[in-house]
Amino acid sequence: MDPSEVKALTFDVFGTVVDWREGIAREAEAILAPKGYARDWRAFADSWRSEYQPALERVRSGEREWTKLNDLHRENLLRVLEKFSITGLSADEREALNRAWGRLDPWPDVLPGLTRLKQRFILAAASNGNVALMIDLARHAHLPWDMVLGAELARTYKPRPEVYELAAGLLDLAPAHCMMVAAHDYDLRAARGCGLKTAFVARPREHGERAPARGAARPDYDIVAADFGALADALGC
Amino acid sequence: MDPSEVKALTFDVFGTVVDWREGIAREAEAILAPKGYARDWRAFADSWRSEYQPALERVRSGEREWTKLNDLHRENLLRVLEKFSITGLSADEREALNRAWGRLDPWPDVLPGLTRLKQRFILAAASNGNVALMIDLARHAHLPWDMVLGAELARTYKPRPEVYELAAGLLDLAPAHCMMVAAHDYDLRAARGCGLKTAFVARPREHGERAPARGAARPDYDIVAADFGALADALGC
Repeated sequence: MDPSEVKALTFDVFGTVVDWREGIAREAEAILAPKGYARDWRAFADSWRSEYQPALERVRSGEREWTKLNDLHRENLLRVLEKFSITGLSADEREALNRAWGRLDPWPDVLPGLTRLKQRFILAAASNGNVALMIDLARHAHLPWDMVLGAELARTYKPRPEVYELAAGLLDLAPAHCMMVAAHDYDLRAARGCGLKTAFVARPREHGERAPARGAARPDYDIVAADFGALADALGC
Repeated sequence: MDPSEVKALTFDVFGTVVDWREGIAREAEAILAPKGYARDWRAFADSWRSEYQPALERVRSGEREWTKLNDLHRENLLRVLEKFSITGLSADEREALNRAWGRLDPWPDVLPGLTRLKQRFILAAASNGNVALMIDLARHAHLPWDMVLGAELARTYKPRPEVYELAAGLLDLAPAHCMMVAAHDYDLRAARGCGLKTAFVARPREHGERAPARGAARPDYDIVAADFGALADALGC
């Protein structure tokens, strides 16, 4: 692959750019421990995240009309709180907890890598997170996006092709001039199916130190990188 | 008006943030003078801009399907070149000229003002310019947008209400928590009709030193400011 063909990089965010598991565990503990709850907060984060794909699938399949991820997260939170026997939170407290998804920290290589990549490429979030959530996250973590693309603009969720097609269309670029960056096979396979180039960035700790990595380095990706620094190297930045 | 009610500022861009007249005149001269053309380049810029509202109106009225501003600019350019008897440009040269709309400079107060405003508010472009053009402009001029909103996402042009409604919707804010910032009455009146707060920023030189300012400081705006520094003052930044 010739890096000069790439004009814009579109990024998956949860897992690829930010560490949702440690961030949600930290924020849940910060809000709930002072109320007297002692729980395994990483298990709490895992449980909340496990509700994610099933909720998205109801929208992707058309069973449910378009609903922002913030709203799905809020609904899913009710089930997780029940599962962890955490009762009696006010609506404001639940809202503060739900907004934790906008206060996650990036992996340590992200900001130095994005700073290098930004010199040469347009950088856009292309997440299933809704626009307002992505703005919160970018302001919290200083992510230098030129644009927030993603599911909400297409009104369906990745890996539906509409999300990738709309991203390239709004950037006014042929799909082959866009590169999707993600730590997840399903996202990259779908992007590739729409004609985007693909970069796999390994995030072996996404699900914790002991959990197996769920993304495999498939040989058909244009780039396979250990982190965002290696991605910038591979793209000649 | 209580500034603490405002969470996000949405900005008109051409005229309000950037000086399109001097920028287009400069870029046209830079591209066309070396080819032997001597023209009044400010008149060239005025002529190109004068094609803008009629072209947008054909989309707003539904006479014409959704078309990006880049594409309308390119069509309009053909008429302007003919009017100024500039012939024989290649398609690449016309494209370079068309992309001048992404190389305009901000008014001198813009970057210091936006830097102050960004500390407290979400900042979004809400222009009739398409997303890719707004990204070019932001990268050229270092405009610190959190998000590019605007016409292309709504697939119609301001002052149609869909543009303002979608902006607030994507920010996940009630319209009353958004403030439209513009140098043009028609834009602010439409935003106000959708429930947004309004800030008028005077740009008396938009159409040149000798042209009358076209925006009037109407008493029903929430803020009337001489520039972005005064806007930041008025918002308590």
